[in-house]
Amino acid sequence: MKRVLFDDEHEAYRESVRAFVDREVVPHYPDWERDGIVPRGLFKGLGELGALGIAVPEEFGGAGIADFRYNVILQEEAARAAVSPALLGPALHADVCLPYFLDLTTEEQKARWLPGIASGDLITAVAMTEPGTGSDLSGIRTKAVRDGDHYVIDGAKTFITNGINADLVVVAVRTGEHPHRGLSLIVVERDTPGFERGRKLEKVGLHAQDTAELVFTGARVPVANLIGEEGEGFFGLTRNLPQERISVAVSGLAQATAAFDWTVAYVRERKAFGKPIGAQQVIKHRLAELATEIEVAQHYLDRCILALNAGELTAVDAAKAKWWCTELQGRVVDACVQLHGGYGYMLEYPIARAWQDSRVTRIYAGTTEIMKEIIGRSLDLG
Amino acid sequence: MKRVLFDDEHEAYRESVRAFVDREVVPHYPDWERDGIVPRGLFKGLGELGALGIAVPEEFGGAGIADFRYNVILQEEAARAAVSPALLGPALHADVCLPYFLDLTTEEQKARWLPGIASGDLITAVAMTEPGTGSDLSGIRTKAVRDGDHYVIDGAKTFITNGINADLVVVAVRTGEHPHRGLSLIVVERDTPGFERGRKLEKVGLHAQDTAELVFTGARVPVANLIGEEGEGFFGLTRNLPQERISVAVSGLAQATAAFDWTVAYVRERKAFGKPIGAQQVIKHRLAELATEIEVAQHYLDRCILALNAGELTAVDAAKAKWWCTELQGRVVDACVQLHGGYGYMLEYPIARAWQDSRVTRIYAGTTEIMKEIIGRSLDLG
Amino acid sequence: MKRVLFDDEHEAYRESVRAFVDREVVPHYPDWERDGIVPRGLFKGLGELGALGIAVPEEFGGAGIADFRYNVILQEEAARAAVSPALLGPALHADVCLPYFLDLTTEEQKARWLPGIASGDLITAVAMTEPGTGSDLSGIRTKAVRDGDHYVIDGAKTFITNGINADLVVVAVRTGEHPHRGLSLIVVERDTPGFERGRKLEKVGLHAQDTAELVFTGARVPVANLIGEEGEGFFGLTRNLPQERISVAVSGLAQATAAFDWTVAYVRERKAFGKPIGAQQVIKHRLAELATEIEVAQHYLDRCILALNAGELTAVDAAKAKWWCTELQGRVVDACVQLHGGYGYMLEYPIARAWQDSRVTRIYAGTTEIMKEIIGRSLDLG
Amino acid sequence: MKRVLFDDEHEAYRESVRAFVDREVVPHYPDWERDGIVPRGLFKGLGELGALGIAVPEEFGGAGIADFRYNVILQEEAARAAVSPALLGPALHADVCLPYFLDLTTEEQKARWLPGIASGDLITAVAMTEPGTGSDLSGIRTKAVRDGDHYVIDGAKTFITNGINADLVVVAVRTGEHPHRGLSLIVVERDTPGFERGRKLEKVGLHAQDTAELVFTGARVPVANLIGEEGEGFFGLTRNLPQERISVAVSGLAQATAAFDWTVAYVRERKAFGKPIGAQQVIKHRLAELATEIEVAQHYLDRCILALNAGELTAVDAAKAKWWCTELQGRVVDACVQLHGGYGYMLEYPIARAWQDSRVTRIYAGTTEIMKEIIGRSLDLG
Repeated sequence: MKRVLFDDEHEAYRESVRAFVDREVVPHYPDWERDGIVPRGLFKGLGELGALGIAVPEEFGGAGIADFRYNVILQEEAARAAVSPALLGPALHADVCLPYFLDLTTEEQKARWLPGIASGDLITAVAMTEPGTGSDLSGIRTKAVRDGDHYVIDGAKTFITNGINADLVVVAVRTGEHPHRGLSLIVVERDTPGFERGRKLEKVGLHAQDTAELVFTGARVPVANLIGEEGEGFFGLTRNLPQERISVAVSGLAQATAAFDWTVAYVRERKAFGKPIGAQQVIKHRLAELATEIEVAQHYLDRCILALNAGELTAVDAAKAKWWCTELQGRVVDACVQLHGGYGYMLEYPIARAWQDSRVTRIYAGTTEIMKEIIGRSLDLG
Repeated sequence: MKRVLFDDEHEAYRESVRAFVDREVVPHYPDWERDGIVPRGLFKGLGELGALGIAVPEEFGGAGIADFRYNVILQEEAARAAVSPALLGPALHADVCLPYFLDLTTEEQKARWLPGIASGDLITAVAMTEPGTGSDLSGIRTKAVRDGDHYVIDGAKTFITNGINADLVVVAVRTGEHPHRGLSLIVVERDTPGFERGRKLEKVGLHAQDTAELVFTGARVPVANLIGEEGEGFFGLTRNLPQERISVAVSGLAQATAAFDWTVAYVRERKAFGKPIGAQQVIKHRLAELATEIEVAQHYLDRCILALNAGELTAVDAAKAKWWCTELQGRVVDACVQLHGGYGYMLEYPIARAWQDSRVTRIYAGTTEIMKEIIGRSLDLG
Repeated sequence: MKRVLFDDEHEAYRESVRAFVDREVVPHYPDWERDGIVPRGLFKGLGELGALGIAVPEEFGGAGIADFRYNVILQEEAARAAVSPALLGPALHADVCLPYFLDLTTEEQKARWLPGIASGDLITAVAMTEPGTGSDLSGIRTKAVRDGDHYVIDGAKTFITNGINADLVVVAVRTGEHPHRGLSLIVVERDTPGFERGRKLEKVGLHAQDTAELVFTGARVPVANLIGEEGEGFFGLTRNLPQERISVAVSGLAQATAAFDWTVAYVRERKAFGKPIGAQQVIKHRLAELATEIEVAQHYLDRCILALNAGELTAVDAAKAKWWCTELQGRVVDACVQLHGGYGYMLEYPIARAWQDSRVTRIYAGTTEIMKEIIGRSLDLG
Repeated sequence: MKRVLFDDEHEAYRESVRAFVDREVVPHYPDWERDGIVPRGLFKGLGELGALGIAVPEEFGGAGIADFRYNVILQEEAARAAVSPALLGPALHADVCLPYFLDLTTEEQKARWLPGIASGDLITAVAMTEPGTGSDLSGIRTKAVRDGDHYVIDGAKTFITNGINADLVVVAVRTGEHPHRGLSLIVVERDTPGFERGRKLEKVGLHAQDTAELVFTGARVPVANLIGEEGEGFFGLTRNLPQERISVAVSGLAQATAAFDWTVAYVRERKAFGKPIGAQQVIKHRLAELATEIEVAQHYLDRCILALNAGELTAVDAAKAKWWCTELQGRVVDACVQLHGGYGYMLEYPIARAWQDSRVTRIYAGTTEIMKEIIGRSLDLG
């Protein structure tokens, strides 16, 4: 069934993204995977393309369009070209970090940071998780102590996407004792004394993506870098979660769709006993199942995106989309590996890399179990 | 996420259907279950309500509105009130049989039959399946031989919904040898000599629904009762399948939703070890999963319904909706039985009856496996 | 792979059971389903066959053999012949109730009851569950108050197998306030004043089996009918659970096996498009999956049975076998219904009745969720 | 439930294997993963330990014991220590290759090769699969043409375990046109002119394992290296498949068990909201499910191993064990990753590497789909 999400402008934008990806990403992707990071120039290029500042007001160098559908297109095109991990950092920058800078900042802060964010000169990250705390925000122990017009930050963060590349890190810190009302958000800038990148983490997949630990040892950050009110960090963090989760759902479903398409092509080409293996009834039915699952989820997710644009998407809706689409991604990509036989295990095939990359989406931005907890609570069962 | 399918007129119509169901169906339902059939008066009542002739042109006594959303409401309200089997016959009449009479008939035939169909005076059925043929239309052996201005029909049909109540049966007959182009559709009327009802079949569920065998022994039917051209029955049959399958998908999802709602109410009330069992994390997560599954499917199905209204729903789309929603119904209702514990096995609880009723939807109107076959072929795999 | 559970004596016994079932059960089974109960004569016949007193010491009229494999054979043969519900009451009598009379009784009690239990003259039941308490033994409210040399019992029990036929009911009662140490077991005999059978419950399946409510209104029972010590009822109840759960696992797997066999026969016979439907690859693979699942579980269960015989089977082992085999039964029987198409929904086919009957095994004798709770606790996770 | 597979001698042997693994494998494993291969010395060490020649007759330097349980222990200990990929090559050598040298060889060949195989001086491989042929033996195109007392071999093989290390490669070649009776087995020795190793393949996991392509360009091999009769290669290949598949099943289940054990330890240690996460009911139930699945499969597999020892294990039995245990491995390891949260995606955790390693077992040695095909055919469905 035809999707009804996109208008002509979106499709035109998709063309430009596709051309950019094919020209600027695909040829370099194997190098970036080996390097374990994308070059800063990728952000610059995407900034020039207009992909990073869509939601940034025009006065600060953006397009001033609050339409998440453009963000969706970036991830869909990355998946199609089998380079999702390269665009994960930029997607995080535009989908997850930017809202902090748009929604919680003063005019002064906006002026200071938004132009660079839109142009790709300032790469952003959010640092929430700590070694050992998982998704429990109330367990955050990184401390910021006021000292004159600075905060002094001590602590450590882990699993930080863009951890190496980031120029601006929104750090969740404890400024008080109350589990929730004691949290604040402070933007730590590259080259802040006492702020160091820890190890780049060795992951199962997402090899072109720099995930790192960050260490703060008496890092002095100007009070002017506090975003939102002191003590309101918890609300700043949670208000952005629905968009973050939709972003992950989008990437999950886009990668499932790409995996499906590669597999259809594969079973048409590949022969056994003199016929395409796609002629086998079990393969035909298996792909029919996957086609159905993907299409059903796509229409749901498209509805969520429109609700997000309209400001009507609840945390519960986002939780449903997040776990459903990423679990689906897991099932689909795994099934597609199986349909590739031995080649599905060889890294030269995109499906093999997609399998490695996809495993984390059920975990990050809130595990499937956390999503079910959120949904379950909303049912008010007792 | 809010459904966007219905307008105010639909909601007003829903109110009237709900009142009708609560007043005219619910109190009598246990009797009808015991009788194994609904009374003809139910069709009359629904005719007066306007539920049977929505798509019938005004000149023939209907509302002249080609909007399947009204049909959807009937099934949703039946499910909510735990009386789906009672309204299955009327739904078949309006969703599945009526299109034959609308699309394939001459003006004379329309004038003869449509008013009664809209008013509920003429109850309809479609007789396709034969003992031993399953979904293989090319295997139909019931024969119609031209004899003057009559056809003489010999053969047997089985699994016919409304089999006992029906006044007009659209019978798929063989008028030629070609597997597909040898099929025709003839309307056999009640009291036709040589047309007899066979046994009412004893089923696992759907006890208020008369499913029967039909037997034709030299049954003489006027040639004027042929609908469509002779030899074009196959196309007549297949063109109506998408709407039939959406109808089944709608009933499946509506019953899943009802089962979910009953279960949420149950786990809030029911206590173990001093607390509502809904407070247990495994129950909360289980219901969170079901809530997600149902919502994802609902938005997809609502899109399908709009596509059906727009004449854009393909056979492949309908196949996806049919198997997905009915398999989901099976999963959901089974899970809800489990959450009811021992009570889930007792017929006084609606969930127990829903479990019995729901098993057939994965089978009739084309099994899940047939649906996957249709979808798989469309992928053109080799 | 060949099963290694049975010796020649077992196989000889199997022959006699099979002959009995074919002669004494199968022809009458439709009547018993309609009646909702088996006749007392069935117990007598099984007593003569030696099926009820295998574990009863010879001095009390039994065979004095502590070998559960004979019990297994009874259920396997019942399943094969599609009459499991008729033999469920006798199986409960021999597998679940008998151990109470063997293990907790005095010599006087043994002499009073065991001969009748072995001969089938005294039919037994266990009454644990109460309306609203589920599996929470600490919630039992049926009270027994000592009055001279009698207990006066007040309360109600539900879901009692053999509820109508039973002559001797082991009733779990509260004789003290402590949740566990306040429970005792009292044998209530037929015709005790103040003991009445409530309704026979209308169930989804198991129609030949009398499941009933029992009501105690000032029922006076001699103190001589207390089994075990007063206040030790909890331990009496829990010590017998492993064998009860293995009994349910055995019936579950036996019915899955029977369903599989019927379905293999069906897909070999049934033709579509000119070939047996079993020739379709998806059906072949589906049945290959079921064959594997059944065989894997069978060898595990056979090991459990030997461990049970050796007195080494733990509550955790039994919980694993119970939930695994009954969930497998659910999956297998459901899949087999689907492979029968429309006939799978018609009660004249054994598979349809098996589907109805099988739904309760995941619930009674401790739900799947309770089993997981037991296993989970044993893992000592925190 | 206690396993009943092993005797005291096995347990003593297990101790020596465990000590060897902990001392000789674990410390070097990270290096071997980086190198993409294990050193030849590992085979020598295992030869000295007696792990490679268990089934080799004493006259040729082995222990002369036909007992696959010793082989099982090697894989179980490798899994426990999280170094399965390092011992995969040796296991293949002892479980899969050795039978060719034992069963198909002349006395002269035995004398030439078995001592080195037992001591680890001669490393073996089997080369069956070709680029593009998958599991279809009839599609083998590598050709061996008789030229005097040599065969001249041309062709290519792929996915060859021990591909780089191997000294002796059993190569399946085409010596005639008949799809099956045209196949023969020839042992190609290291340094044979015209025999070259192709690329070492980059895989998703199994990084310590050298999987390679082999290329034959006019490779001249003495006729004395033919094993079995010319034209009987197909039977040589298929007769060894059951043991190969049991070997894979063993490794699959051993790795699932290890993953489970690591995860139990993890959820006991790891805290959230002040309590071990293992205290959460959903985690407890999830692990209860995995514990059950593993235990059920283990007892089945142990039965298979005894049947293999007894020469009674059929191809169908082995197919069941293979697909069931490897699919279980997939489910279990994936679930265990999820329970590790973000750490499950970090390669420093064994569970992350186990997830990568485990994906291939559902594919190699015959995919799950091939296994179902084998089982399905044996059901003789039409």
